[in-house]
Amino acid sequence: MARDITRRDLFKAAKVTGAAVLGGAVITSVNSFAGRDGVAGFPWTYKKVDPDTAALRAYNGCFEAGCMFGAFEGVIGTLAEEHGEPFSSFPRAMMSYGGEGIAGWGTVCGTLNGTAAAVSLFVTGDARKAIIDELFNWFIQTPLPVFVPKEPKHNFEIKPKRPGSPLCHISISNSDYLFSEKELSERCLRLAADVSARAAVLLNSWLEGEFTAATMLMQETNDCLSCHDDGRKAPKARTKMNCVDCHPQDLMK
Amino acid sequence: MARDITRRDLFKAAKVTGAAVLGGAVITSVNSFAGRDGVAGFPWTYKKVDPDTAALRAYNGCFEAGCMFGAFEGVIGTLAEEHGEPFSSFPRAMMSYGGEGIAGWGTVCGTLNGTAAAVSLFVTGDARKAIIDELFNWFIQTPLPVFVPKEPKHNFEIKPKRPGSPLCHISISNSDYLFSEKELSERCLRLAADVSARAAVLLNSWLEGEFTAATMLMQETNDCLSCHDDGRKAPKARTKMNCVDCHPQDLMK
Repeated sequence: MARDITRRDLFKAAKVTGAAVLGGAVITSVNSFAGRDGVAGFPWTYKKVDPDTAALRAYNGCFEAGCMFGAFEGVIGTLAEEHGEPFSSFPRAMMSYGGEGIAGWGTVCGTLNGTAAAVSLFVTGDARKAIIDELFNWFIQTPLPVFVPKEPKHNFEIKPKRPGSPLCHISISNSDYLFSEKELSERCLRLAADVSARAAVLLNSWLEGEFTAATMLMQETNDCLSCHDDGRKAPKARTKMNCVDCHPQDLMK
Repeated sequence: MARDITRRDLFKAAKVTGAAVLGGAVITSVNSFAGRDGVAGFPWTYKKVDPDTAALRAYNGCFEAGCMFGAFEGVIGTLAEEHGEPFSSFPRAMMSYGGEGIAGWGTVCGTLNGTAAAVSLFVTGDARKAIIDELFNWFIQTPLPVFVPKEPKHNFEIKPKRPGSPLCHISISNSDYLFSEKELSERCLRLAADVSARAAVLLNSWLEGEFTAATMLMQETNDCLSCHDDGRKAPKARTKMNCVDCHPQDLMK
């Protein structure tokens, strides 16, 4: 890439072309890493989860103990109910720590933390990374939530909007509900349902050897990473988040 | 608070006084929430972990499978080795998903995600939130790492610096090692040791009924939250992270 092209030029070009540098790869290999002293039978054997079942269980679980618990519960709680062990012995309630970006800190969205944790019980290595990448990219770029419960906890119409970021704070700030506690709560309950269902879909396709990434890293991020990727040309950025969320002024240089 | 004081004024005043609005509370109560369909024996019963043992195990664990696994392993792996069940059956290897802010996304630092998860096996409700708050505030404000291994994986002198944020991307960007992969790796290995040891210290004090918060939310954050706290005066911010990391221009208004 020519060094005299500015970052702003790259940004504009990206908007026009809509092209993406990183393609999705079909990755189904499993790395059998089992931890320092090994845990027999890890990773666990996944069994198919019905996405609609996951969604409803996540919705109710989120209402009960927060978004990370709900999203995890949608997949692992369903497996526990339908198949028993080893799922039923997992202390699922621990996942309630991740609500509101971990104890209210607004870091990673609990629905992503919870589903990444769930995926990680079954999938390791490059395949796990590919599935988590797909979950995160889909989450960022998709107007959410789309799940509509038959018996809503709070009876509002919730307008889907792109979360734009895997961070709770930014995702919530991109919603329309910063002044309405109950509407925001309903938005996040439904988000947990959507993300848990999506994780089930991805795990189901991975189980069948048919997982492919449907989304890609945002073009703006790719443009920045084209220099900030390996720490040779510029400091390594070490993120896949959308750079302009926190560095908009840099694009003006 | 007078409404004609600008945010910038508040920011300056905070810098001068160094005062903090939120005090640390002694909280040792345990909420016995056990998830939607209950898991017998949750939360688990904590047993004391030697912080130095946790640190070394975290350092090695981080080298093996990333920072979230390492920090979790420092506490839970030590308990598994010293006490067996239920710790030894926990699929600890799952925690490797959180490396580099979850699969390289640069969101929450894996050492914090891993120790928050470990804390969450034993402590629930307000006490859990207080311990996680303390871990995060301490992490942000303390020059780290301070752990020096007897047998380093990479033989560098690592300069302690305040991570400044619970986010991997910002924490790493605040280090001196953006151009040096091995030095950065060594920095993060030692960080995992420090955070895991700190989690053990906090859990040990909580077990004794002596937990108190030693650190507080950053003053800059408190100043912003004085308006952005409940969504009545201004949009609720829903974060405890340092606002100026991503919103420096707002302080100029």
